[in-house]
Amino acid sequence: MLLGMRDGEANRRITLAEVAQQAGVSLSTVSKVLNGRQDVSPATRGKVERLLETHSYRRTTRAAREAPLIELVFHELDSVWSMELIRGVENLAKAHQASVVLTESGTRHAPAADWIEGVLQRRPIGVILVFSSLPDAVKRQLGARSIPFVIIDPAGDPEPDVPSVGSANWSGGVAATRHLIDLGHRRIGIVTGPEDVLCSLARLDGYRSAMNMAGLDHDASLVRFGDFHVEGGYERAVELLRLPDRPTAIFAGSDLQALGVMEAARVCGLRVPEDLSVVGYDDVMIARWSSPGLTTVHQPLREMGEEAVQMLLRLRAGEPSVTRMELATSLVVRKSTAPPPDRTVPLAPPPAHSTL
Amino acid sequence: MLLGMRDGEANRRITLAEVAQQAGVSLSTVSKVLNGRQDVSPATRGKVERLLETHSYRRTTRAAREAPLIELVFHELDSVWSMELIRGVENLAKAHQASVVLTESGTRHAPAADWIEGVLQRRPIGVILVFSSLPDAVKRQLGARSIPFVIIDPAGDPEPDVPSVGSANWSGGVAATRHLIDLGHRRIGIVTGPEDVLCSLARLDGYRSAMNMAGLDHDASLVRFGDFHVEGGYERAVELLRLPDRPTAIFAGSDLQALGVMEAARVCGLRVPEDLSVVGYDDVMIARWSSPGLTTVHQPLREMGEEAVQMLLRLRAGEPSVTRMELATSLVVRKSTAPPPDRTVPLAPPPAHSTL
Repeated sequence: MLLGMRDGEANRRITLAEVAQQAGVSLSTVSKVLNGRQDVSPATRGKVERLLETHSYRRTTRAAREAPLIELVFHELDSVWSMELIRGVENLAKAHQASVVLTESGTRHAPAADWIEGVLQRRPIGVILVFSSLPDAVKRQLGARSIPFVIIDPAGDPEPDVPSVGSANWSGGVAATRHLIDLGHRRIGIVTGPEDVLCSLARLDGYRSAMNMAGLDHDASLVRFGDFHVEGGYERAVELLRLPDRPTAIFAGSDLQALGVMEAARVCGLRVPEDLSVVGYDDVMIARWSSPGLTTVHQPLREMGEEAVQMLLRLRAGEPSVTRMELATSLVVRKSTAPPPDRTVPLAPPPAHSTL
Repeated sequence: MLLGMRDGEANRRITLAEVAQQAGVSLSTVSKVLNGRQDVSPATRGKVERLLETHSYRRTTRAAREAPLIELVFHELDSVWSMELIRGVENLAKAHQASVVLTESGTRHAPAADWIEGVLQRRPIGVILVFSSLPDAVKRQLGARSIPFVIIDPAGDPEPDVPSVGSANWSGGVAATRHLIDLGHRRIGIVTGPEDVLCSLARLDGYRSAMNMAGLDHDASLVRFGDFHVEGGYERAVELLRLPDRPTAIFAGSDLQALGVMEAARVCGLRVPEDLSVVGYDDVMIARWSSPGLTTVHQPLREMGEEAVQMLLRLRAGEPSVTRMELATSLVVRKSTAPPPDRTVPLAPPPAHSTL
């Protein structure tokens, strides 16, 4: 029914005056709803929103503001990931004389319900969501105001019809594993991310392909799923290091997990890289600062933030734009990887308590 | 002269109409200048700004905006410090239905010159600067628009007349040093921050006082000044560890420096904490994730961000507010500290190249 009306009226734009007439309210009330003003009753607001949606109304005039805003929304501001993304968005916004409104709101699935009201009031030039998405109703509200949005989703699982920026996870998994093979490792373990996150699977597939290409069997007992946090890396690495034929190298699915792997090595009395090589994934600042410095796969987080702004500006200008963009990853070699030891001996039995 | 006029006219407020008359421009032009609009010639703008300043004009009406903004300005968005401060500001702003405009601009001394124009256009409810300050002219521009500002300055060296939030550095230095003394250490080195930053000196004084209170001499050869970064911690620690009578513990003036100290220990073949205890300062996330986990002094960064918003709201409401607030620090004990080894032996001569 909704689609039918859209199709039938595709050639004619509805005016705000017509919306006002159909809703039985004044033009100024319709305008208030469009601009997110709060002095309209919920019932009237709902009626106007539904009419705007039914007729696929698209605002064509822009707010004549001199200090344009870009909304940047995280469902969680964590200190590992967020800052580089923020800097990328900030830098490119500034280059276009725009300021960034930063919001932490909602969950992995959507910002909190009250978030959209502020956005409609501020009339930003666009919205960038990190690791999140939008309910359809909100997408339509933004659409009616011609406010474009882009999702930054390094996890690699965006909705297909939503403009998004990610990075090349499979290739990163290949690069990390090849580096270890080239150093001479044959028993290579992996602690990838959670089993239900697409980028974990892409990195794992990259690992398997690199092993296959080198003619190496991949031993299923050397594959573990973590949680992308230090704790998961630690726990899964302790399991791997206590195997009778333990790995001489571990590819950790994130830098945080790699720190957990290094702590597991320390607790097990193994030196990194002399006894165990460790490769991370992300190349966030902590990778550079860890002791020893972490060899890892660089995700271009700052560039992803910049690209999201570019995509937003293209969408706003009505220019053609790809829907999904994946930026390249690259290996950064530091000090946590080395050739394998001549001979590995199994570890002594574990101590009674050895949690983080 | 300026001061004289201020004093003489203290009892009478100038109106915008009078400013317009004296400047020979329309009231609407004066209003445009007040609101940061760009369609006013620089000459006219300058004339109006000078009159506003000369008469100490203070705007008394507020912008009737429904989505109020708080400006948060960093001269550098670094991933160690910034995120916790941002989260504190964001959380409390949200609790007051305000959104945060995040800007990276300028230097340690002031945001870039064009920053203020955007602020005047956006008419925020207030400005929070991190590790930075404002030129007097900008302070007056904000003052004329009744836009309060607060400085978050953990370095502990704010201008005396400026509202600011910091933390208790001297007490933190005492707590870190006492912890090492209580573990049995007597040869305790310190790598504090740069010699020209007040908080470095406060932490060093705390260290000296704790040593004195315990009846321990503080050996001047065990005191070094770093740069608050990993590199400085590494280089100064290598110097300390190669002393004939090397320290069994090092209090590093920041968590990043502590990571450098740990890397120096690793390069010198010393285990942390078995051969060397290390205490950091800040308690940023990397302290928790380092291997071993870092014992450190917790700076309440998030609370400092929250307190800055509170101070801003009090200033805006015209309520009395302290000018300088220092929040308490506390020691967090993790795994990088232990009793000293029974006997320390000097290190072997350094390798030819051992830089980070």
